Amino acid sequence: MHPLSDPKSQSFLPVSEQSDFPLQNIPFGVIERPDELFVCASRIGDTALDLNALQQLGYFDDLELPEGLFGQEALNEFISLGRPVWRAVRSRIAELYAAGSDLEDKSKQRAEIEWPIAEVEAVLPVFIGDYTDFYASREHATNVGSMFRDPANALLPNWLHLPVGYHGRSSTIVESGVNIRRPNGQSKGPNDPAPVFGPSIKVDFELEMAFITGDGPTGETPIPVERAEEYIFGLALLNDWSARDVQQWEYVPLGPFLAKNFATSISPWIVTLDALAPFRADRPNQEDPSPLPYLQQDPKGANVDVHLEVSIAPQGHPETVVCQSNFKHMYWSMAQQLAHHTINGCLINAGDCMGSGTISGPEKGSFGSMLEITWNGKEPVTLSDGSQRGFIEDHDTVIMRGYCKKDGLRIGFGEVSATLLPALSWNPASTSKN
Amino acid sequence: MHPLSDPKSQSFLPVSEQSDFPLQNIPFGVIERPDELFVCASRIGDTALDLNALQQLGYFDDLELPEGLFGQEALNEFISLGRPVWRAVRSRIAELYAAGSDLEDKSKQRAEIEWPIAEVEAVLPVFIGDYTDFYASREHATNVGSMFRDPANALLPNWLHLPVGYHGRSSTIVESGVNIRRPNGQSKGPNDPAPVFGPSIKVDFELEMAFITGDGPTGETPIPVERAEEYIFGLALLNDWSARDVQQWEYVPLGPFLAKNFATSISPWIVTLDALAPFRADRPNQEDPSPLPYLQQDPKGANVDVHLEVSIAPQGHPETVVCQSNFKHMYWSMAQQLAHHTINGCLINAGDCMGSGTISGPEKGSFGSMLEITWNGKEPVTLSDGSQRGFIEDHDTVIMRGYCKKDGLRIGFGEVSATLLPALSWNPASTSKN
Repeated sequence: MHPLSDPKSQSFLPVSEQSDFPLQNIPFGVIERPDELFVCASRIGDTALDLNALQQLGYFDDLELPEGLFGQEALNEFISLGRPVWRAVRSRIAELYAAGSDLEDKSKQRAEIEWPIAEVEAVLPVFIGDYTDFYASREHATNVGSMFRDPANALLPNWLHLPVGYHGRSSTIVESGVNIRRPNGQSKGPNDPAPVFGPSIKVDFELEMAFITGDGPTGETPIPVERAEEYIFGLALLNDWSARDVQQWEYVPLGPFLAKNFATSISPWIVTLDALAPFRADRPNQEDPSPLPYLQQDPKGANVDVHLEVSIAPQGHPETVVCQSNFKHMYWSMAQQLAHHTINGCLINAGDCMGSGTISGPEKGSFGSMLEITWNGKEPVTLSDGSQRGFIEDHDTVIMRGYCKKDGLRIGFGEVSATLLPALSWNPASTSKN
Repeated sequence: MHPLSDPKSQSFLPVSEQSDFPLQNIPFGVIERPDELFVCASRIGDTALDLNALQQLGYFDDLELPEGLFGQEALNEFISLGRPVWRAVRSRIAELYAAGSDLEDKSKQRAEIEWPIAEVEAVLPVFIGDYTDFYASREHATNVGSMFRDPANALLPNWLHLPVGYHGRSSTIVESGVNIRRPNGQSKGPNDPAPVFGPSIKVDFELEMAFITGDGPTGETPIPVERAEEYIFGLALLNDWSARDVQQWEYVPLGPFLAKNFATSISPWIVTLDALAPFRADRPNQEDPSPLPYLQQDPKGANVDVHLEVSIAPQGHPETVVCQSNFKHMYWSMAQQLAHHTINGCLINAGDCMGSGTISGPEKGSFGSMLEITWNGKEPVTLSDGSQRGFIEDHDTVIMRGYCKKDGLRIGFGEVSATLLPALSWNPASTSKN
């Protein structure tokens, strides 16, 4: 039985009970090695696997991969090769690292392949050409609509008919561990006579998951919803940092802009849909109303049961969990999002990133942003050090984690973590003297 | 006197009176040569100049440019080198091609450098990482606000305080000459009980100009408004294709998405700000209200006096001009747009594209979209073949042209042209059998 089809199969590498990366995961990423070489990699437990070394040692020869495929700073070329190649490579890695494989005793080869995770840097795994962010959680859209518009009509008329989405900024997507700067910007409170300039006082996180796409069809051809998952390479955790005060002032009529594009954090290990197969979950019913035909017939079990958590750690203090949610709550599935995105002929490229939108559950403890948790700051949360938070404060670290668990098998995403740095001081007068 | 500082200087290459590309222009682009080699290029009159050949012949040796800089499919690496290099290269090309230069008689070398424009393909000149579209024409925003919201309060409260902008889709930006497919999508008329699916019946153009950026500062550092133009490589014409019926249904609350991301057309020759220096124009006053300090002190003459025209040519019929506008009308200058875009620390990269938003003038004949020209289809325009247009019909070609003219000197952008193809037929039922 192939190790990937056996939930009990083990690697000869150590994998702790709580690890997100057993032999059944085999995610893909990019690492910077201690010798400053960037290579494509996978991970088992706390060991990073250099896929470039595996290729050079001949372990992929029969797969006829392009030369130097994994000796790169991004997975894009690999992703462009399509799902059969993703599957063949993942399957081969699992065979090589299953307990009892020939590789186990080849210590000289293993020394070339294996790196302790603590000795490498997991960097942004793909070059992201285009970034799209959706708004697919009914609970989140309802909460935001109630706060900023009308609780009686919280959902706008289009929301139940299409997965609302908008374009984000690719240049500021950064990997977990990169610190984020509090943005300066314009905001205007209801009682301010005119907008004011300064550091945002409502910096927020948004708990999201993202999927990375393969190359879509060309020739303005849409991706049919029931085949959309063929074009999904894998998933990661995403923190869509937001400045709520800036957002509320700027967002009409064309949507969020500076409130979002200062930073977006992503977890560095892309977990394939194949690894998540045992954890698929049905999405909520869509009968009132039914979507148009091009959005129907997404796969049964179109969602994924991923337990999600968000913690805040003030500088020098332990973290406090402020949100526990689940990716299965999403009203619009990933397949529906991708089918909708391409129904007009929009071109999708390998390495495009599509965020789910904030993942809020039904109860307050499962809300995926401080905006909702504290109801726009009105009901602050108390952290374990006794301090209170309406939004994120300077030097706070926000940590998001996610994993699937079933019948003793745990497949996870690791974490996406970032610390908020104070805003840069900005004195326009000073610049006018240049 | 350097040929670039003499409006009367001539090239030894033929340049017609009506040409947009005299010796004083020297734009940058990328051509595909008849031998299918892609190289960076410039243009004088109807002759394309292979910059890779010029570099290999040693004409840039003293500039110490990276090897193979121009033997590429995009200008990005060149743009990354910064304004002093842009200026040195442009200045050198003008010296080489000024009447009486040594090169004039070197027919063997010239045969390696020069290509008749008709024998080459001018392709997308930059790899566009991120595309931002602004909404900077007061007349356009007022027209749209009057149609879709409230004529009495056509401008939303933020509009006069900041240059409203949003992120667009990079993957579907195409060069002039690439045909566009009418998109399918959802729309819902005021009297429809539910949204309907099908080809958009309100496909529109938007007359815009775009600027291409250099590398911005890192470290979350904003670009000061008075120095923003150091980061602008050059300008082009842009047609921001729009599906109005799709847009009106989808755009709340996060902005246009599928209504815009099916296609954006751009002219292939990037004209530098230096070439446009003689044609600068003041932007409209901003005293009621004054913008915040970080948006003040953009350069005097922050706009450019570019005469703009849009024509529609039905299949097999001559074109009819439906719009004459001018880039000088923009309320928010390019410098203000770039300063605003980076005030929150957003990273700008070489090759990013920033659209101005539709360029509408004060009178009806100067409106930059069919939405405004026909007032959402209610007042169709009659073309020279007697046919009428509310919006763009299948097989129509939309052509945009722009040039500056003063004291006998004409510097222009050529054109951005594209033909609208019929929508693909889309039967979701058929796909569900796969």
